[in-house]
Amino acid sequence: MNPEKINKIIIKFIKEKVANANADGVVIGMSGGIDSAVVAKLCALAIGKEKVLALIMPTRVTEENDVYDAVNFSERLGIEYKIIDISKILDSFLDEIEKDNEKNEKNKTALGNLMARIRMCLLYYHANLLNRLVAGTGNKSEILCGYFTKFGDGACDILPIAKLYKTQVRELAEYLKIPKEIRKKVPSAGLWRGQADEEELGIPYEILDKILIELIDKNIEISEIIEKLKIEKETVKRVENLVNNSKHKRNMPEICCTKI
Amino acid sequence: MNPEKINKIIIKFIKEKVANANADGVVIGMSGGIDSAVVAKLCALAIGKEKVLALIMPTRVTEENDVYDAVNFSERLGIEYKIIDISKILDSFLDEIEKDNEKNEKNKTALGNLMARIRMCLLYYHANLLNRLVAGTGNKSEILCGYFTKFGDGACDILPIAKLYKTQVRELAEYLKIPKEIRKKVPSAGLWRGQADEEELGIPYEILDKILIELIDKNIEISEIIEKLKIEKETVKRVENLVNNSKHKRNMPEICCTKI
Repeated sequence: MNPEKINKIIIKFIKEKVANANADGVVIGMSGGIDSAVVAKLCALAIGKEKVLALIMPTRVTEENDVYDAVNFSERLGIEYKIIDISKILDSFLDEIEKDNEKNEKNKTALGNLMARIRMCLLYYHANLLNRLVAGTGNKSEILCGYFTKFGDGACDILPIAKLYKTQVRELAEYLKIPKEIRKKVPSAGLWRGQADEEELGIPYEILDKILIELIDKNIEISEIIEKLKIEKETVKRVENLVNNSKHKRNMPEICCTKI
Repeated sequence: MNPEKINKIIIKFIKEKVANANADGVVIGMSGGIDSAVVAKLCALAIGKEKVLALIMPTRVTEENDVYDAVNFSERLGIEYKIIDISKILDSFLDEIEKDNEKNEKNKTALGNLMARIRMCLLYYHANLLNRLVAGTGNKSEILCGYFTKFGDGACDILPIAKLYKTQVRELAEYLKIPKEIRKKVPSAGLWRGQADEEELGIPYEILDKILIELIDKNIEISEIIEKLKIEKETVKRVENLVNNSKHKRNMPEICCTKI
């Protein structure tokens, strides 16, 4: 891949989409991770730093250095940022939910998804107030595997890096001179302490991306992929299942549309 | 339209989608209005009343009779229901948002959208806990005009009545014997006191649907529509603008996908 060319293409995309929507800028959820840092920088380059607002939205489980990195990077970029701790909002949801449901056991997935959706609510509230678009930070690896929350971090108006695999985002991040402490961080959705993408996906991004390229972009048979990449069948199968089972996250809701 | 036939088609659709997703049922946001009542009844008919959970989610601005009607109808259907007042959740959002923003004027749209998105969060939290799908209640008139909140009431897994215009939903509601107090209610999104769809859209549904049929389904020129329906040009133009400006609400986020 050619980072210089990609950089130009994405900047043009952001500029055009914001202009076409008659929007006054973008709002971005900034986690302290590589994806949101790359998107924030691309947006600042595309439409000017004064038109980019970063929301930094930690909870009790957020690592302190993530907030620190997000703040630092926003200041370095010169974009406006706001820190909104979502813990109390989360509590207010759980208070209402648990009120009449004493046996309500904690469900990690439901809780993690709720956090992602609370962040979406805050991003769109600001987008509404400021007449801005929400720029999503999803990359191709995550999107294909469904490794995001439907209507949470998956909810946005534009997806600037959605066609870049995680490994390509890393290349672009280097080109964009994103600070090393952000680039070299262990990838995490940050929904609970110690959560790590590669552990949950059960595979490092270097290998995942190789499999996805063969499986999706080249549409090659599983048996051939196994031989070519020297990877176990179960691994390739698991990736295939992730892609198939997450189709609903990449499509609009299913509509009953048999001739009526 | 033939309500008996449509009824069968939608019931088959719901049954299939729930089965294909390996889901244990559906969760529905029940407002006390006609659309959610129709969807709830169709779901109960399709998969059994014990697999349908209605969430009734009033705020301070909700009309009391809406809650009353939603409860009454749920009991009549025999489905499980839960009342969750979202006022405190809403306050917790506003507390955090307004903390460092004293001049933050109240923005009716942002606030209304936030309510709709809080409801979505609650629906999906329950869907996660119970391994269920969220059944949306959007109809074709609303969806085409963009008269819904993106990632709020627009967010769901299946849309059983999305191909029915509001006036057709009314016919189906009569066939389904939805109580008169629900069927005859003034249509409202219920995001603030006295809000009325037809006032906001600037046109009664009877006329809106006629225009949409010509404009969208038959793809007829505006000049012909004006002549055929004896409606002012501005009205037809306004409807056309609603449809065009809300395209982004009916599509997935825009992806930067020029060859990378």
